[in-house]
Formats: sequence, C-alpha cells, structure tokens
Amino acid sequence: MRHFDLAIVGTGPAGQKAAIQAAKLGKRVAIIEKNNVLGGAQINTGTIPSKALREAVLHLTGASKRGLFGENHRVKRDITIADLISVGQQVIRREWEVIRDAFDRNGIELVWGKAHFEGPNLLQIEFGDETELITADKFVIATGTKPAKPESVPFKAGKVFCSDTILALQSIPKTMTVVGGGVIGVEYACIMATLGVRVTLIEGRNHVLGFLDHEIAEAFQYHMRRMGITLRLGEKVESIEELPPDNGSGILVQATLESGKKIRSQTLLYAVGRQGVCGELGLANVGLEFDDRERLKVNEFYQTNVPHIYAAGDVIGFPALASTAMEQGRQAVCHAFGAPTQSMSNLFPYGIYAVPEISMVGKTEQQLTEEGIPYEAGIATYAEIARGQLLGDTNGLLKILIHQEEHTILGIHIIGTGATELVHIGQAVMALGGKAEYFTHSVFNFPTLAEAYKVAAYNGLNKLSHV
Amino acid sequence: MRHFDLAIVGTGPAGQKAAIQAAKLGKRVAIIEKNNVLGGAQINTGTIPSKALREAVLHLTGASKRGLFGENHRVKRDITIADLISVGQQVIRREWEVIRDAFDRNGIELVWGKAHFEGPNLLQIEFGDETELITADKFVIATGTKPAKPESVPFKAGKVFCSDTILALQSIPKTMTVVGGGVIGVEYACIMATLGVRVTLIEGRNHVLGFLDHEIAEAFQYHMRRMGITLRLGEKVESIEELPPDNGSGILVQATLESGKKIRSQTLLYAVGRQGVCGELGLANVGLEFDDRERLKVNEFYQTNVPHIYAAGDVIGFPALASTAMEQGRQAVCHAFGAPTQSMSNLFPYGIYAVPEISMVGKTEQQLTEEGIPYEAGIATYAEIARGQLLGDTNGLLKILIHQEEHTILGIHIIGTGATELVHIGQAVMALGGKAEYFTHSVFNFPTLAEAYKVAAYNGLNKLSHV
Repeated sequence: MRHFDLAIVGTGPAGQKAAIQAAKLGKRVAIIEKNNVLGGAQINTGTIPSKALREAVLHLTGASKRGLFGENHRVKRDITIADLISVGQQVIRREWEVIRDAFDRNGIELVWGKAHFEGPNLLQIEFGDETELITADKFVIATGTKPAKPESVPFKAGKVFCSDTILALQSIPKTMTVVGGGVIGVEYACIMATLGVRVTLIEGRNHVLGFLDHEIAEAFQYHMRRMGITLRLGEKVESIEELPPDNGSGILVQATLESGKKIRSQTLLYAVGRQGVCGELGLANVGLEFDDRERLKVNEFYQTNVPHIYAAGDVIGFPALASTAMEQGRQAVCHAFGAPTQSMSNLFPYGIYAVPEISMVGKTEQQLTEEGIPYEAGIATYAEIARGQLLGDTNGLLKILIHQEEHTILGIHIIGTGATELVHIGQAVMALGGKAEYFTHSVFNFPTLAEAYKVAAYNGLNKLSHV
Repeated sequence: MRHFDLAIVGTGPAGQKAAIQAAKLGKRVAIIEKNNVLGGAQINTGTIPSKALREAVLHLTGASKRGLFGENHRVKRDITIADLISVGQQVIRREWEVIRDAFDRNGIELVWGKAHFEGPNLLQIEFGDETELITADKFVIATGTKPAKPESVPFKAGKVFCSDTILALQSIPKTMTVVGGGVIGVEYACIMATLGVRVTLIEGRNHVLGFLDHEIAEAFQYHMRRMGITLRLGEKVESIEELPPDNGSGILVQATLESGKKIRSQTLLYAVGRQGVCGELGLANVGLEFDDRERLKVNEFYQTNVPHIYAAGDVIGFPALASTAMEQGRQAVCHAFGAPTQSMSNLFPYGIYAVPEISMVGKTEQQLTEEGIPYEAGIATYAEIARGQLLGDTNGLLKILIHQEEHTILGIHIIGTGATELVHIGQAVMALGGKAEYFTHSVFNFPTLAEAYKVAAYNGLNKLSHV
C-alpha cells in the first residue's frame, strides 16, 4: 500500500496548485482524477472552452472589429460549429499537456480513478475493475461543482442544455432561451447573440449579475439589448417543456413564466446554480459533513471539521472562481505542512467574459452607500481615450470609486475591451495603499486603455475639488 | 491687441495638456497651431496613424490570429492601401474632434497661424496674409520635432520616404529597405513585413532599440527574422541613390553600406533621428537658445533660460514620448502659475508598437549589473498562461527583475500581446513600493495575461530561495 504525505482529490485549478505547492515543499503527493481528462470543469467544460468559443466567435464574426471596419464587416460568412470548436479543442489539448508536464516535473503521482474514504487516512481508488488503497497524512478535497439539474427540467441533447452540454451543440440554432442571468448565463447569451442567434434571457432578479455595481450592470444590459438579446428580468420560470417535434415551426422548447408568458425557441440553456460533487467520496466514513448542495464548510485555513482534511475551490462555495481556487489550494497546503504563508488578499477581482468584457475589484457604489462610506466616482469612457478609438471600442467605461476625504481607492469597475486585464492596475494601487493622485501623477503608455485610469482619476478629483 | 495669461505654441500632446491645465486653473489661454490640422505629429503623422495602420494590418492579414486559426488564416486577400488608410483617417478625424471639443469646453482660444516672438511677451501670429499680435504673461513652447532629412538622402515621393511621408504610400511595395533600428524604423519594418513586404533593416549598432533589455531585444530580433525581415546590424549606410527607372527590375533605390554591400529595393524608409522645430519662432529676439538639432534646454520645472518661457514635449528631447509630453505640459503650467504639483515620476514606461508589442519600466539587466545592484530575474512565457493559449500567442515573455535582498521590483520587461497595457501593473507595484511577494499573494483574473506576473514572481522567488 502506497503512502503519501498528501492526497488530493480532483485535478482542477485548486487541486493542481495544491499539488505543486506541496511538491515544492518536498512532500510526496498523489493527485486523483475520476474523469478521463485532467483539469476539471475549468479546462474541459467551463472556463477554458467557453473563453475559446468566445474568442473564435468574436474574431470570425468580425464583431470585435466593427467599430473600425464598419457594421457590415465579416471575417467569415456561414460560420459552422466546426470552425468554433476546433479552437477550443486545441487549447484544451495544450492545457492537458501543461498540467501533465507540471505534475511530471514536480514528481507528483497522478492516480486515475474514483476516490472513496475508507478511514480517516485511508482512500480507496477505483479504476474500472481495479482497486487500489492508499494512505496519506493530509488530504485536500478539490472536487469542484457541476451544474444543478432539477428533475423538472427536461434536459435533452440538441434541445435543452446545461452548461456542461452546451459545448456539444451540433449546429448553430436560430433561437435560444437562456434561463439564469448569472455569469454562465450571460456569457453564453452574449456569445450566441454575437453569432446571430436570437436570444431571450430570463432572470428572476431585476438585474443580471446581481453582484455588479448597478451602473455597470445597467450599461451591460443596454449593450445586451443592442445585440438583440431580449431580457426578461424579474420573471420566474414556472415550467419548461419540450414541444412535439412535428409542430412544423422548428420550435422545440417552451418556457412558461409565472407571469403567464410563454417563450418558445429552438433550444434552451438552463444555467441556474451549480452544486458541489463530494457526495460519493464516502465522507460520512470520516465524519465529514456537507450541505444540501454537496458543499463543504472550511475555516480560514481551508480546514474542514476533520482537521487533516482540507477543501478548496468551488466545492467550498463563494467566490467559486478559478483564480481564487488556485490560491486556496496553495494556502491549504501551506497550512497543512506548517509552511509560512500570507493569508489570501480579500481584494480579488471578478472577471466576466461577456460581450463586452466586465471586471471589478473592491466595493460597488451600492455597498459603499449602505456602509456609510463617503465616496466620489471618477469616470472615463473609452471614447475619450485614443486607444479606444484605435480598437473601435468607444462604449467602454472605467469607474474609480475614491474616498471623499482620504482619496484612497475603494473600488474599480470596468466594462469594455480588456477589462479583465486592466482591473489589475487598480487592484495593485488599492492593495498597496495608493491614492487617486497615483493615477494623475503617473505616466501611462500612449495609446493604451490604461490611460482611462488617469482620465477617471482626474474626473473624480475634479468633482471632489468642488465639494 | 488681445492679452492672455498663457500662450502655447503647438497643439500636440504637450500643448493640449498645458492648455487644459491652465484653463482648469482659471487662466486665459491661447494655443497656436501653424499647420491646418490639430494635434501635431502625434495625431497626424506619428503615433496615431502608425498605430491605426498597425491595427488594420494585424487584423486584415489575420496575422494576430494565426496562432488560433492556423498559418494560412487570412481575413482579406489582396489588401489595398485604401483598406488600410481608411481606419487611420477615421481615428484622426475623431481625435481632431476630441481636441477641438476639449478646447471649446475649457474656453481655450485656438489661434491658427505661425507664431514669432517679437519681444519677451509679444507674439506675432501670421495666418496667410493676416497678422495678429498678442501678448501673454507666460509661454509654453511645444512645437515638437520633425524627421531629420539629410541632404545626402534623395527623398522622393513613392520611392524614398521619411517617417512623415511613409503614410502617403500609394501602393504596397514588394520590397523595402528601412534605414534606422529605432522605434519608428522597427515599427514600420514590422508592419510592412506583416503585409508581406520583403524588408531589410539597417542599423549601425549591434542591436535594434538600444535602450531595451538585451534579452528582450534578442527575442524581438528573433521574431523579426522569423517574419522574414533581413537584419543588417552593425552596418552603416554610406550612400543612398535612386536607380534609373528604366532598369527593368522594378528596383528603384540602392543603399550602399560601408561594408561594401549594396541593398536594392523598390522603396526605402529613412528613419534615423528627428529634430526639433523651433528655429523659426524668433527665439533669438527673446534671448532663447536652441541646440544644433533645434532642441531647447529646460530645468526640472520645464523652464527655459528665459524664466517665463517654458518648453515641453519632444522639442526638449529625451524621452520624447507622447505620454511624458502630456505630463510635462501639465507640470510646466502648474509651475508657471504656482499651482501645487508633484514632480513627475521618473518611472515612466516605454511602449513599442512593433509586432510583437514591447514595453518596459524601470531598469534593464545591463543597467543593474553596471550599477552593481544584485538582482534575480523571474520569467514567465505566455505559453505557460492559459490566456496566451487562448490568444494564440505562445511566444510572449514577461520578466520581473527582483532585488536579491529586498525583493523590491527593479524592472519589468515584456514582449508579446498586450505588453503596453500589462506593464502598468508592474509600474504601480514598483511606484508604491510593493515587493515580488505582492504578485505571488494576489489573485489575478483567470484567464488573463496578467497571470504572467504571478508565474514570473514565483520563478524569481524560487531562484532566490536557492541563493
């Protein structure tokens, strides 16, 4: 029976970084994967394939360059699914290699199979007909999440998709209903609309992406509507049913809303909620509890209620980002082996790869108002920035929330090209205690979108000088 | 005779920002432009049109997406000059409006004509047959530079270009010789090579872009060669001559090198040096001296040897960037009117819009070695970063120079997609005193190129842990 210092269940971002961190500390590490591919949802069904699809769609439709080359600019007419999927496949294959290579270089033992706790330090791993028992001193559970699939929704290949199956779309439909205005719902709604699909998005709350600053959410909703997406906000879905295939209209699915509206379309994407996947790990055998959505509770060190078993990544819930998962994996391992570490900054950015891109770090105007923190908002539009003109994106917007007295930075909110990259400049200034004057006194490359920080800071400080 | 608090000569970036700053301080401002368009070289012949050309070329040739869609990917075959120029024209027109609008909104008086000092506070402005005299308390000279055009070079439309006339290229040539491996020379060499022009670049030194970190310069030279550019480094041009048009080969220009080599091509771009344009301002009338390249000397407050006359932008020489020009313009005005200001950070980034993009801030490895500052280099390649795969750019490289003992950041060097934007993250961390651990402890959006900072910082700190 092999013994390891650390056994990790799941090869997604949290598991990977946990494994590498432990190897760097000189530990003997096993990492276990039950699927036949590495990388978890991030690589195979989630982040990477959807971003690859987005890149391919934005380029091949010409949508990202219409500001420069005119409204009729197309790179390719009659785009097929094959055009779109190949990019993702290529990226996924390279990512598998990158992960495999990192495991090999660091001497990490990759074990294929389903893990099951047989005792506090004993794991059974089942691979086809074979079974191996291993022991380990410490464990990290990084099994991630899967889409919630309520029984009332008639999921069906080619018609009614969840966020895992949408990538197996066989052809580009004429119409799609998207249920759920969270990150996954809006990202796919935007990708499909860019492809020319007529999309209706249904969200129970009055805004999509409820955690966003309202001004950004409203700007985003405006852009979604201009792309031809019909938004049904504050509407709940009562039922979803498949229509008989012989109805002659090509319409295959119908969603009935509580308000009585019926929304019919060729396809439907159900993107409401995800749930943890730790129910089959035999956690009861070690006294480990999970909640009704199969998620684990951890303390600030990512320890579960069984101290030698840690958990990291989406399976522990909020914020459920690939970026935070990686950091959690590292931190868990450092704590497990007593290595020094600084606790993770709670100043992490959000990136939403919609069309346009959205990113934020820090607080929203609504949060600051609620908390009674006096602020001023400095705003720059990409139309004011030479780089915005050069990219043909004049709709972008960058907002800096500045403390009225201290001039410290309370939040950064960006919608537009490059938002997910640009946000890190503001994040660094916030984390290191810089003030709005940092932006006005610094020199930015010309022409760059980063100049928007300077314009926004001037705008905010000018307003403050009149207070 | 109209009187102003401030008169500015030149509407380029330095002049514009000086005018706006003075207006914000409540001053009466005149700004004088001798050309029939606003914005100086930045808008009309320099930065903006060359960047617009670059954007159009990268997109229409498909070059920026070949990593994703394969080596044969093309967006448009048979690209014409008209395809390329229209983008620039459109951006230039919008920039004129942006500048005009900023002047109007701030009550800045725009005066068209050639300015000539008649006395310490008296300026004559000539516009066609009309002449106006104005007086002002303070002056800012922001007249910029123009290409140096030695008499020995037979500049001729359609054949032998300087960096101003290259934009009037009437058709895409088969071959081009570029003399000068500075920023302008390499930017155009890369744009032309991307278009399929066979380019030979001649540079007297052993590296292009002498101020770059050598590792980056070498990587860049490698990429240029792979694009099909022939580099003649350490070679000096002895003479350039036009060949008789009836030579039948379509070869029109010949450059003879000191080494005896003859380089023949259809077109030649001479891009060696620029010189100030203040020789016709009547500066002798106010006792103001300029050097043999028509450049003005200023002190740290941008004052010339005549204290009420300031100068800013390219006309004062190094670093001669649009970005620093703007800040100099602002600073000059703040000093002129006793407004508080923080002196400009000397931590300004360089951006080179070649193919690939290059950017740096802080010191190079060579400078640090020379100064005896012990450092370690942390490196990340874009191939290690998911976003690099998604963009199809796996050649990019980000290098962080870390102080061996303090772990402070001494320099950031980037070559690859987004370099000019990304550099600002490192710049903020440097300016605000952050250390390499800032990058390892922070959470970055996934997938972004900014993650390269984290990978590079880990790489550098790992090396340091073995010292």
